[in-house]
Amino acid sequence: MTQSPAKYDVIAIGNAIVDVIARADDAFLATHALTKGGMQLVDAEMAELLYSEMGAAVEISGGSAANTLAGLAAFGKSCAFIGQVRDDQLGQVFAHDIRALGIDFDTPVRTAEPPTARCLIMVTPDAQRTMNTFLGASQFLPAQALDKDMIQAAQILYLEGYLWDPEEPRAAMRTAIAYAKEAGRKVAFTLSADFVIARHRADFLAMIEEGLIDILFSNDDEIRALTELDDFEAAVAAIAPKVPVLVCTCGENGAIAIVDGVRSETPAAVVERIVDTTGAGDLFAAGFLTGYVDGLSVEDSLKLGAIAAAEVISHYGARPEEDLKLLRVKKLG
Amino acid sequence: MTQSPAKYDVIAIGNAIVDVIARADDAFLATHALTKGGMQLVDAEMAELLYSEMGAAVEISGGSAANTLAGLAAFGKSCAFIGQVRDDQLGQVFAHDIRALGIDFDTPVRTAEPPTARCLIMVTPDAQRTMNTFLGASQFLPAQALDKDMIQAAQILYLEGYLWDPEEPRAAMRTAIAYAKEAGRKVAFTLSADFVIARHRADFLAMIEEGLIDILFSNDDEIRALTELDDFEAAVAAIAPKVPVLVCTCGENGAIAIVDGVRSETPAAVVERIVDTTGAGDLFAAGFLTGYVDGLSVEDSLKLGAIAAAEVISHYGARPEEDLKLLRVKKLG
Repeated sequence: MTQSPAKYDVIAIGNAIVDVIARADDAFLATHALTKGGMQLVDAEMAELLYSEMGAAVEISGGSAANTLAGLAAFGKSCAFIGQVRDDQLGQVFAHDIRALGIDFDTPVRTAEPPTARCLIMVTPDAQRTMNTFLGASQFLPAQALDKDMIQAAQILYLEGYLWDPEEPRAAMRTAIAYAKEAGRKVAFTLSADFVIARHRADFLAMIEEGLIDILFSNDDEIRALTELDDFEAAVAAIAPKVPVLVCTCGENGAIAIVDGVRSETPAAVVERIVDTTGAGDLFAAGFLTGYVDGLSVEDSLKLGAIAAAEVISHYGARPEEDLKLLRVKKLG
Repeated sequence: MTQSPAKYDVIAIGNAIVDVIARADDAFLATHALTKGGMQLVDAEMAELLYSEMGAAVEISGGSAANTLAGLAAFGKSCAFIGQVRDDQLGQVFAHDIRALGIDFDTPVRTAEPPTARCLIMVTPDAQRTMNTFLGASQFLPAQALDKDMIQAAQILYLEGYLWDPEEPRAAMRTAIAYAKEAGRKVAFTLSADFVIARHRADFLAMIEEGLIDILFSNDDEIRALTELDDFEAAVAAIAPKVPVLVCTCGENGAIAIVDGVRSETPAAVVERIVDTTGAGDLFAAGFLTGYVDGLSVEDSLKLGAIAAAEVISHYGARPEEDLKLLRVKKLG
């Protein structure tokens, strides 16, 4: 089919979350039975309890796919976001921050309970982040909130696996995939977390089999969970033939991509001091997609991913602080 | 009179503000006619406009006197805060953060408009901060919200000049001074800003003449504004005989204190990279008061002030990130 020129490089659908970040020690994690490095969903009551006991915090807009867009915008890419906030102060913060990055965000604000989503993040001295997400308004994104023209005007539709869990956004994302496919656009999907895969494994595999996913982002744990294979290489070998582009990040061991059967690799970029690993995967995706839409080699796209991930883990918060366009020129030429 | 042992080292009355911090360039300040390094009050409409045009931000609890208490708490001092928030999300953020530092904060929450105060802070590449404060709920602190026993249980009552401007808190602060004096406690006062002095100069001078202020904090501009003398030394000479303790900060030129006629000085502490000067004066006061309540020499108290100020300007936000107790041992022994 004929494809019209894209207004956006990437449009993403994801949780609209404000991160609440505090330093914590291992004893705090133990007392509250929190699994270091993990992400758990918490209800309002648990969020209230944890918040009352955690340290003085900093509020910074977050959300996995929204962080990826923040990275893309910092690379100079044209982006739009779809996600649900409430008409409260944290909703205003989220909307302000994403628009201030030049990202279009027009999803109608909800006027009913629950409040805007927040993620209580404990950062331990080893720079690991332990996330406790109260999804709030985020999980009530209705399919009718989608702007079909906007989705079809983007070269890539990027979907966050975290949002596959609640029913309403899942239905919305299915609709969005249909819109994108109808317009001949690419669909990128990030598996997000083990618990999401545990609940929706069959669904994800079916989408992959149906050819609905053009670019799949995963980390080493997630691809093994998806395939139920203990061996990373076996897991990669099982999925790679079924998606045009497979990207797997492996933390400090770098990342690989398999594109049309060809494997490329990058080591992790050097970071002087890792402060807070929140957003590493989100920003890796931003770098890789920047390379993808700019037509860079797969290896250079992986390198851009590593560069963006390195930037975001060198400070608190999951949104880049540096101008990634400049960093790209400096590091990649 | 007999003085009972103090439960608190310092109780402070001040604005209860959440800072909204974004980087900005000089062009942004010019476009919005903002005076670099200054603090201006803005109404809801102006706050809305500025916020919509400023960059992606980070929210961190602030407020001048509250920052000073955060510093005192980080030095291990026992503190309480009195200030007005609304029952909104930013009010929850402020209350959470101050309590998480171990500071008692029991002021009844307001349930009516306006919302909790916020300060839109633009940080330019030269690390200067330009503040635009929407006072919101903060200016409606009623005298009946004061807990007399709490005030009389503190060795020092610390008052923020910023809060002298609105009528209701001014009356509350006068009442608080009377409570403190009745119990034989010390009253510390910070002049806060030129615009406050311009409006309340006669009032401040009268309080000084009446002997209501035991410890006066000022910077070089403020003491000259207070005395209407261009010469710094002349201004200091005019005020010093009227207050038991006068502390004047002079930015990068360090600070002086005149205690019972004896002058002490400290240079500014060395900072590797100044990131954001917000809170420098607030934290200087925290360090000095820590020395004061611990019975250190005036020179060492000034040094503690310089150490705390240096810490807070080395990162974004006006609350200390480091454990100032450890920094004190490291730098002062």
